[in-house]
Amino acid sequence: MALHSGKGLLLKADPIAAAFRDEIQLALSRVSRRPRLVGILATSSAPSKFYADFTKKQCEDLGVEFVLKKTGAADTGDLGEGEGVEQAIIEANEDENVDGIMVYYPIFGAQQDHYLQQVVSPYKDVEGLHFKFHYNLYHNIRFIEPKSLLSSGVPSAASSRVVESEEPPTGLVKSIIPCTPLAIVKCLEHIGVYNKILPYGDRAYGKTITVINRSEVVGRPLAALLANDGARVFSVDIDSVQEYTKRPQVTGPASARQYHPRHVVHPSNASLQECLAISDVVVSAVPSASYKVKTEWLKDGCVCVNVAADKNFESDVRDKASMYIPAVGKVTIIMLLRNLLRLQQYKAILIE
Amino acid sequence: MALHSGKGLLLKADPIAAAFRDEIQLALSRVSRRPRLVGILATSSAPSKFYADFTKKQCEDLGVEFVLKKTGAADTGDLGEGEGVEQAIIEANEDENVDGIMVYYPIFGAQQDHYLQQVVSPYKDVEGLHFKFHYNLYHNIRFIEPKSLLSSGVPSAASSRVVESEEPPTGLVKSIIPCTPLAIVKCLEHIGVYNKILPYGDRAYGKTITVINRSEVVGRPLAALLANDGARVFSVDIDSVQEYTKRPQVTGPASARQYHPRHVVHPSNASLQECLAISDVVVSAVPSASYKVKTEWLKDGCVCVNVAADKNFESDVRDKASMYIPAVGKVTIIMLLRNLLRLQQYKAILIE
Repeated sequence: MALHSGKGLLLKADPIAAAFRDEIQLALSRVSRRPRLVGILATSSAPSKFYADFTKKQCEDLGVEFVLKKTGAADTGDLGEGEGVEQAIIEANEDENVDGIMVYYPIFGAQQDHYLQQVVSPYKDVEGLHFKFHYNLYHNIRFIEPKSLLSSGVPSAASSRVVESEEPPTGLVKSIIPCTPLAIVKCLEHIGVYNKILPYGDRAYGKTITVINRSEVVGRPLAALLANDGARVFSVDIDSVQEYTKRPQVTGPASARQYHPRHVVHPSNASLQECLAISDVVVSAVPSASYKVKTEWLKDGCVCVNVAADKNFESDVRDKASMYIPAVGKVTIIMLLRNLLRLQQYKAILIE
Repeated sequence: MALHSGKGLLLKADPIAAAFRDEIQLALSRVSRRPRLVGILATSSAPSKFYADFTKKQCEDLGVEFVLKKTGAADTGDLGEGEGVEQAIIEANEDENVDGIMVYYPIFGAQQDHYLQQVVSPYKDVEGLHFKFHYNLYHNIRFIEPKSLLSSGVPSAASSRVVESEEPPTGLVKSIIPCTPLAIVKCLEHIGVYNKILPYGDRAYGKTITVINRSEVVGRPLAALLANDGARVFSVDIDSVQEYTKRPQVTGPASARQYHPRHVVHPSNASLQECLAISDVVVSAVPSASYKVKTEWLKDGCVCVNVAADKNFESDVRDKASMYIPAVGKVTIIMLLRNLLRLQQYKAILIE
C-alpha cells in the first residue's frame, strides 16, 4: 500500500471514467439511433492525431459512431496547418446526420481558435466551448430551455439563482459544461473532495482550491465551476491572483452572510506560495514543460491534479500530496460522449 | 510641399474623419430620437481613460448622447481592474434606452476580453466585435436580415456570394463591420488605394498589401476585408506568413480564373522582407514600442499606415513611403458612431 511508504496515492483516471462508461452504455441502449460524432483533425500535431485515435477507440468501444474528417495538414494533399477547418465545421453543422462535432485544438492559436469554437452549432458542441455554455457556466445557470440555444442573446439575470436540486425543473434541461473542467470536477467528486452530505450546488463548501492558469478553455471555467459549487478558489495566472467565491467576504452574523447565486471575483494580494499553503486541492493546467509547482509549497495531505499535457508537478509531489491524479484525459472523453447523448436528446425535444 | 523635399506625405486622419462626420450629422438630423451610447470604463488605464474622454467629446460635437459608466478600478471605490464590467454590459443590454455599447479594452487580456465581446448584444455592438459580425466579415456576407442578429446560428453558405452592388437588396441591411478594420479601409479608400472605376466589391484588385499582426481584433479581419475587396494580402504574424486572396492561384485561361465569393487563405513561404518588397500598402498593428518596420525593406512609393498605439514605423519612413498615416483613431470613432446609427435603425425595423 502506497501510504505505508509515506507517499500519497497515485490515482489513474480509468476507474473514474469506468463509472460514467456504464451510465453512457445504459443510455445508449435506450436511444433509437446511435449518435454520430464527427471529429475534425486539421493539423499535423502528433498529440492531436493521438487524441483523435483515442476518441475513435472510445467511441467504438461504447457503440457511438465516429467519423474522422481530415483537412489541412492532417489531410493527404498540400494544404497548410488548419486549412479547410472552418468549412469542415460548417458542413458538419449542416449535416442532419451529425449529432456532435469535436475539433482537435490547438490549430491557429487561442484567439482564432476561439473564433472557430463559435462556428460550431451549440446543438452539436459536445466540447461545450460555445460562448453560450461559457456564459451559463459563469452565471451558474445550470438549467436551460432547449430552444434558448437558438438565440444569440444571453439569458436574463433571473435565470441565475440559487440551485436547489440536481434535476432540472419541467421543461428545462441541463446546460452543457465544457468537458475538461467538468472532467476535473468529476474526478474531485469521485475522490471525496465534494461532500455528498452537503446540499447539491454547495458540495465543495469548506474546501480551498488553487487553480493555476486562467485560460478561457480550462482555468477560468474550472475556477468558476468550483466556486459555484461552494469552494473558495484562488485563480492564479502569470500576472495576478484572484479569489472566486460565492460567500460574502464581509464579517457579521451568519444570517447576514447569504451567499451569492453565483461566484464573485475579487482581486487577491496572496502569492502562489501563500495560496498553496492553505489549499486542499491544487489543479495545474500550464501548457509548459518547464513549469513545475514546488512540492515544498504544498500543504501536507493536499490533492494534486495535473491537467496539462506536460507534468506540472515535481516527481516528488506525493511526498506532500495525499492523492495525485496525473491526467484526466480519459474522463474528459467520457464527459464529451455524455454531452453528445444530451445534445441528441435536446435536438429531439426541439423537433417535437 | 513635402514631396519637393523628397519625403512622402504625412496624412492626418482628421480630413478623412471630416467627410464621414458630415454624413453622420445629416443622418442625425433625420432621426426621431438622439441615439444614446454607453461607454464602459473598467480599468485605470490612462489610454482607455483618454479614449473615453475623446469618445465623449466626439459624441457631444455631433449630438449623440454619451453616458460613461465607470466600474472596476475606474470607479471611485475599492474595486479591482475590470471588476463589475460584465454586469455593466448586461445592464446596458437590458436597458431599452441604450442604443449602443462600447467597452474600453484591453481589460483582462485577449481571451477573457473575447468572452466579454460576446456578452454585448449584437443589436448594441457598435464596435462590431461580436462573433456574428466577424463571421459575416470572414465570409464576405455584406447584407443581412435584421432578425438574423437574434439567432445563435451562422448564416447558410448561400449567403456568401459575389457582391454586385453597394446597396443592400430589399429587406436586407448592411452587416456591421468591426470599426478599426473598417476605419483603415476608409482611409485607404480616401487616399485612392481603392479604385472607384473598378466594380464595387473588387476595388482593391491589383494592390498587394501587407498587414502585420494577425489578432482577431484588427489584423485578421482587416486582411480578410482587403482580400474580399480584391487585394492580394500578406498576413504576417510572429510565426507565419499567409496569403489572403479571392483569386485562384492556378494559372490558366482567364475564363477559368473565376474568383471565389470570398477570400481563401494559403500558407506562404515569403519572408516579411519579401512581402514588403512587393507591397503597395503596409499596415502595421503590433502592440509593442520596440517593434519597427524597417524603412529599407519598403517598396519605394508605398503607402504606410500605423494602427498601433506605438509607432511601428521608423522615423524616416517617408524616405520611402509616398504617404504615411500615423494614426486612424479619429476615423475609428466616426465609424463607431456610424454603426450606432445603423443599429438604431435595425432595431426599429425589427420592432415594426
